[in-house]
Amino acid sequence: MVDENATIQRTVAAVLARSVRAGARLITQAESGDAGIRPVLQTLYRYGGHARVVGITGPPGAGKSTLVDQLVAHYRAMGQRIAVLAVDPSSPFSGGAVLGDRLRMGRHDTDPDVFIRSMATRGVLGGLSKAVGDALTVLDAMGWDVVIVETVGVGQSEMDIVRHASCIVLLQTAMGGDAVQIAKAGVLEVGDIFVVNKAEAEGSGRMVNALNEMIGNRANHGEPGKWQHPVLKTEATTGKGTVELAQQIERRFVFLSDHPQVARAQQVTQLRARASEIARDRVDTRIRRLTDGDAGHAQLLADVLARRQDPYSFAEALLRDGGS
Amino acid sequence: MVDENATIQRTVAAVLARSVRAGARLITQAESGDAGIRPVLQTLYRYGGHARVVGITGPPGAGKSTLVDQLVAHYRAMGQRIAVLAVDPSSPFSGGAVLGDRLRMGRHDTDPDVFIRSMATRGVLGGLSKAVGDALTVLDAMGWDVVIVETVGVGQSEMDIVRHASCIVLLQTAMGGDAVQIAKAGVLEVGDIFVVNKAEAEGSGRMVNALNEMIGNRANHGEPGKWQHPVLKTEATTGKGTVELAQQIERRFVFLSDHPQVARAQQVTQLRARASEIARDRVDTRIRRLTDGDAGHAQLLADVLARRQDPYSFAEALLRDGGS
Repeated sequence: MVDENATIQRTVAAVLARSVRAGARLITQAESGDAGIRPVLQTLYRYGGHARVVGITGPPGAGKSTLVDQLVAHYRAMGQRIAVLAVDPSSPFSGGAVLGDRLRMGRHDTDPDVFIRSMATRGVLGGLSKAVGDALTVLDAMGWDVVIVETVGVGQSEMDIVRHASCIVLLQTAMGGDAVQIAKAGVLEVGDIFVVNKAEAEGSGRMVNALNEMIGNRANHGEPGKWQHPVLKTEATTGKGTVELAQQIERRFVFLSDHPQVARAQQVTQLRARASEIARDRVDTRIRRLTDGDAGHAQLLADVLARRQDPYSFAEALLRDGGS
Repeated sequence: MVDENATIQRTVAAVLARSVRAGARLITQAESGDAGIRPVLQTLYRYGGHARVVGITGPPGAGKSTLVDQLVAHYRAMGQRIAVLAVDPSSPFSGGAVLGDRLRMGRHDTDPDVFIRSMATRGVLGGLSKAVGDALTVLDAMGWDVVIVETVGVGQSEMDIVRHASCIVLLQTAMGGDAVQIAKAGVLEVGDIFVVNKAEAEGSGRMVNALNEMIGNRANHGEPGKWQHPVLKTEATTGKGTVELAQQIERRFVFLSDHPQVARAQQVTQLRARASEIARDRVDTRIRRLTDGDAGHAQLLADVLARRQDPYSFAEALLRDGGS
């Protein structure tokens, strides 16, 4: 126990001293669902709350990695220390190529003030979003000025992931589906900043107009105390629009500090979601333990298979034995 | 209570009498996470176990809906009653068009021995896969001979959904990524039958060969008691290959009844997964109730926001109050 405490203290100290090696190892442990790092995360959490966490998401091929690369260069030019967590919730099957994209960021490889890390579904026990939350706790405690969470896709799990951020950038291209689809997907509600990348492509102007119109339809433009959602054009490959995007990101954080009520409401929402994820992860782990192997609940299982009992009663038994 | 029991009995009787209206209503309730239908599902489960449940999945655009349409026509020609549950775990954003695709199946609209139903993520409280399991319990009790679960995509959640089926068909096209990607996605382990649709397309033969090779690499070909995974070519638009696919699906069910050990192992795995999903759903519901509104845990929440406490402790409190 004394040894264990000493290890915890050492790890915490290393992370607070900005050891990239200690941070990376903790993230790997978070990814693999290692429950042993919990006391470390609990302590690290108390040192956090300083990083500006930016979430960036959009469909595959929208140019997220290239844009993030431009943002990294921009923040570095401003003397900011920046970490990127690139999350791929999809299988390789569906065309995600986060790991390959990372190669493009090679130019920051030798910069000690840039930290780039990928997380993928494969190998993540429990919820990916929970592991992302843990990783953000580590990165926040490491004192990075800016942390970008980049995720591929715009489904529910991607939204859960970017919701850890206080500023959410939704990336789109004119080729990536029309604006009505975006509205249908319900992602308008989530985004703080909208970006139409590949601005040189045909239809980009139309896309910007459609997005502006839909945001206008939400009828919160110009109201005091309400965030005005900008719609920007970028060309990630040339860097055009990057500075404007970085400015809007800054404007978002200034807005949050000027509107503590809004900031607090967002924090409460995030925290509730985070606590739910952690709680669910713990229950999942217990249920997995109970249902692994043949020993547990053999008779009940046989009864359900014979249809003398039902899976709902089986689930009740699992909760009674392991749910609290 | 007497009234409630009477309602339960009436609903159960209607479903067992194959009332499409009663079945459809129950599936809607399952989709919306209505916990009140639980006693009905518990009773219905005991009457099930007769439908041959076939899961079909593959990337968007592979031609699933068209192929399913062909299968429906085939089974109808054989005098079989068939239900289709089309599940879209992705947001509209990512190109899913299950609802639109359903229009193509209009030719079965007036056939009382065909039941087609879509389920989408939107509006499903709790796990989609849990709701699919509930819907299958209803369809099974309704006495459909064949139930097809069709889902778009090949990520983890899609696999969770098709795993409810005893025969899993993985659909692919030569355009939909190469075979190595399929192997990487880990879906080879899940599929019982592989189909290369759009067989007329260039590269289809190569795809079939690559799939055969990878399956051969799993070194279970020809072993007694082991299922041999067929790789088929289809042209869903013309119906070419549909009969062969239906034959292989039948071969799978014959194999399972000839190998009760294999069938039982599959049932146990499915049941454990099902019970886990139900248990998780119950915990989720409780946690949601506890975290909804501002009343619950206000002091602890304030402490976590002030970083005097951490989200892990908050999660513990949620589990203590609502997890068992």
